[in-house]
This record gives sequence, C-alpha cells and structure tokens, in this order.
Amino acid sequence: MNERDALRRLAADLPHAGDDAAVVGDTVITTDMLHERTDFPPGTARYTAGWRSVGASLSDVAAMGAEAIAAVAVYADDAFDPTELDEFVAGAVDVCESVDAEYVGGDLDTHTEFTTATTAIGSVTDAGPVFRSGAEPGDALCVTGRLGRSAAALRLFDRETDAAVERANELFRFTPRVADGRALAADATAMMDSSDGLARSLHQLAEASDVGFSVDRDALPVHPAVAETSGETTDASGESPVGGSGDEATDRFEMAVHFGEDFELVCTVPPAAVDRLRDACPAGLTRVGTVTEPEAGVTADGDPLPDRGYTHG
Amino acid sequence: MNERDALRRLAADLPHAGDDAAVVGDTVITTDMLHERTDFPPGTARYTAGWRSVGASLSDVAAMGAEAIAAVAVYADDAFDPTELDEFVAGAVDVCESVDAEYVGGDLDTHTEFTTATTAIGSVTDAGPVFRSGAEPGDALCVTGRLGRSAAALRLFDRETDAAVERANELFRFTPRVADGRALAADATAMMDSSDGLARSLHQLAEASDVGFSVDRDALPVHPAVAETSGETTDASGESPVGGSGDEATDRFEMAVHFGEDFELVCTVPPAAVDRLRDACPAGLTRVGTVTEPEAGVTADGDPLPDRGYTHG
Repeated sequence: MNERDALRRLAADLPHAGDDAAVVGDTVITTDMLHERTDFPPGTARYTAGWRSVGASLSDVAAMGAEAIAAVAVYADDAFDPTELDEFVAGAVDVCESVDAEYVGGDLDTHTEFTTATTAIGSVTDAGPVFRSGAEPGDALCVTGRLGRSAAALRLFDRETDAAVERANELFRFTPRVADGRALAADATAMMDSSDGLARSLHQLAEASDVGFSVDRDALPVHPAVAETSGETTDASGESPVGGSGDEATDRFEMAVHFGEDFELVCTVPPAAVDRLRDACPAGLTRVGTVTEPEAGVTADGDPLPDRGYTHG
Repeated sequence: MNERDALRRLAADLPHAGDDAAVVGDTVITTDMLHERTDFPPGTARYTAGWRSVGASLSDVAAMGAEAIAAVAVYADDAFDPTELDEFVAGAVDVCESVDAEYVGGDLDTHTEFTTATTAIGSVTDAGPVFRSGAEPGDALCVTGRLGRSAAALRLFDRETDAAVERANELFRFTPRVADGRALAADATAMMDSSDGLARSLHQLAEASDVGFSVDRDALPVHPAVAETSGETTDASGESPVGGSGDEATDRFEMAVHFGEDFELVCTVPPAAVDRLRDACPAGLTRVGTVTEPEAGVTADGDPLPDRGYTHG
C-alpha cells in the first residue's frame, strides 16, 4: 500500500483526514513530518529547515481559512549541534511571526536522519472553516502567488555554488498564505494548499467536491525563478523529485504544475468575487480556470491533466 | 551537546519549553516523537504503539491540569501495511476515548524506521494551568498510580513468550492521567509527568521551583509487575534502557524510580489536601515525601537521589 492509498484508507475512517487540517470546535490542528532525504536537499540551511517545516503546517491552517495561533516542532537528529538548533528555532520563530502566530517550542529526539515533525493550530473565524468539498460547477478556479518556486529551488541547490544555494534557501522560505486564506474564507467554496502540486491538488478537490476542472495553461502564474532554471535537468536518480518530466508537457509546465511543494492556496470562488479577492490577497490571486461537471474530468487546454505529482517520501 | 543540554538551551530561549506543554491563551499544546529503536521494543503491537504514542502527549496535557481535547499523529514507516496502520489508528482512537478526547487524524510519511510524532491539545480550566515552578518547602510530594510499570513491561518483552509479550503490551497501554490532573489542578503547586523517571522528574521540579525533595523510599507505590520481574537482568547492550542498575540501589528501586516511562503525575500539594485529593484521583494518589529547602537537594531516606534516568534516544 502506498502513501496515497494509506491516506485514502485513513480518510475513510477519520472524519477529518480528508482536509488540510482537522477541525475541533473552533480550533484547527494539522501535523506534518519532513526529513532530510526527501525534503531538505544538500545546502538547506537549518534556519530554512525550521522556517519551511513549521511553514508547511501553517500553510495547512491557511488552507482552512483559519487564523494561525501557534506551532510546535520536534527536532530530531543524530547529534545536537547548538548552532544548528538555534538556527532551526530562529527559522521557526520567524515563520510564525510572519503570520502573527507564536512558536511555542517542542521536543528533541535522537534519530538517524535529520527529521522534523511540526504541528500548527489555528482558530476558525466567522467565515470559516473552508473544506475541500464545496466546489460547484461554474465557480472560478484560482491560485495565490506563483507556482514552481520549490522546483526552481531544487535546481538551484543542485548547482552547488554559494550564490545559487543562497537563492535556493530564499525560495524555500515561503510565506504561509494565512492572510490570503482569511481573505478568501468568506467566499471560497473549496480550498486546499498546493503542497502536492497543482495537478494533484485539483484531482483531490475534484474527488472531494465531485466536480471537474478546466485549466487555462496560459493563465497559470509561474514564478520567475522557473524561467531561470527551466531546461536544466537534475540527476535522474530514483529519488529525484523532479523526475518524470517529459511526456506531453514542457519542463516549465512540469515545474509549475506537477512538482508541488509551493504551498500556495488553490481555491474555488464565485466568478463575480475574483476581482475583489485579488485585491484582498497579499500574495495576489490568479484565475486559472473553471469548475466543471465531474464527467469532464481535470483538463488543461482540453487535454487530460494527469493526477501526477511529487509523492512525498 | 546531549539532549538535556539542548533542551535546557531551548528552555532559555522559548517561554514554554520548560513545562510539559506550552500554554497559548486557554489552549495547551505538546508534541513528542517516538521511534522503534528506543521506544517500541520487539513485540510491541501497532495497537499498543498507537495507544502509547498518543498517550504520551495526552499525559503532558494531564500534567498541566488541563482538559484533553484532541490529538493528531504522524505515522512513518518504510512501508504501509494496512493492518498495522488500522491497528495503530485504533490504539490512537481508544487512548483518546479513555480521556474523553478526540483523535482527529494526522499524516503519513515514509521513513527508514517506524517513527511516530504525536501532538495533543487541551483546554485550561479555571483551576489551571499547573507549571513546574510553584512548589514550596513544606508541600507534600505525591505521585498518581504506581511506578515501575514500563520497566516491568520491558523485561516481559524480553521473555519473548506469547503470554509475556501480551502482558507487556497491556502494561505499555497506560491510561493518561487526565482525570487525575484535573482533580489535582486547583491544589497542586507544581506538577509534571514522570516520563523520565521519578528521580529525574524531581530534579527537574527542584530546578524549576528552586526547592529540594525528601523522599521516603518505603512510601513509594510500586507496580505489582515489578515484583514479577525484578531480579531479572536484560541484555546489557549499550542501548538497553534498563542499563545502569546496581550501585547502592536495589533493582526494584531502579525500576520504580530511575527507569521512567510510566507517565504518572508527580505533584506537590498542601499537606492538608492529600487525603481529599487521594479520593478525587481515579488512579490513586500517594504521598511519597516532602518539599524541602533547595540546599537540602533531592534525597531518598536521607541519601542523595542521583539525577539519573532513561535518557530518551
């Protein structure tokens, strides 16, 4: 059983397993584990790792349209280097501050591989929570920010020059879209984050809402770093998360749509609300398509968009 | 830097790192990581692992005197066996139900070693939260339940017979002392759980409250399973968590006081309240000593009680 099948099984048993965060009363709670081999490429600073680990959980809070309250983290490594630990905590504190949440500590553990487990809690406002299940045919499909940021970062890490690694670290330190999620909460009919890539997110929203999606490829907001790095290929080892490119899609499309790890919000809203919401989202909001009947499936420019992305290791 | 030094460093930087759980408004939040090599000996059923992992975090909520609300868990393994996953979730659900909390799901991750990361949240009542820092000389030192349960379980796992392993699994599935913690919250001047062993817990309380402790060895409530298994020795490999026995202490004392992992509550209360609180604690409450001036240190029958326990791997 792979991770997706296992998650599907969990979702059948647990009421909240199908959304980005569980809702308990007015509180949302979400947890994630990241580790070196699959999530922190060589060159990832501990400050960046702290930022990104905690940010991943804050992104899930954002995807519920909730206010972020606090986060905790477990830091596990084979040894505790005081400088690395301080940098990790500084990154965790700073990403929390970026969304007006509080980093309140955590736990340490000895592990054979650098591993983090983060949990964030949030507070549902009058407008939320927003689930994955409410999209209706005719709604506008929108994304915050720009896609492909993490795919570009991976390629920059591979260059191994100081400048490229520094830029990669910057790209890895995304701002969780908490402010955007709250701005969208009153109007969004469905929402999730794009951590598994836009394509896979759309298939998950399609299943949860029983709808299809029609994506306009030219409308996709692509991060400028994609242009800087597209065309390069990474080592084609089995573990390369950029693997599987080619087929009908261009490299750039792969980076923006299938790679994932961008932690942007993917949402459906009434078409008449798009202009207003664009102004309300600090990260920007782009309409990239339309919700369709379920029979139409998930398509981009009329072609089926495969349910393929980065399967988290 | 070892884990204790690292935790001390964290505690200096983060306001909540010195207690069992962080307090954010009326919410308490706590997180833990457990893994196969150090926390789940051969023979540990996945149901038991789910129960114990989530229970460890619920125990931290209990130690704050808070009501338990919900828990999440990350389940990481090198493959996802559907039966094992179902059993883990069943254990997680059941331990939550045992304390009137809700298991609301979590995340999956692929990892080289079976690893869990759990987080629990709770709600502070009018009586709480209880920190580690309020003990005063003259207070009575008390513990809930009985000590040595997990040390005995380890020895039963080592026997490898079906009956012994089944009994060991039962002993491993402790009831988090949430009801006891709430009963104690209004009176307790300091409280924590005994996950690192009574001895180490007392040293931590002593440091946080700037007091000493005088323990009466004969008063210590020892779990009946200790008598069943004391005198046996486990393999003296470097990783054996029962290692370090001998010295001046008997094996039974080692099991009850230094091994830890019992998840009982250790608290200080006004002496006049002990009888009333004993009746109010479902797990029972035993007075085992008295809070002293800090200069007296931590002693058992007048001898120094070393700050030695099971350092979590």
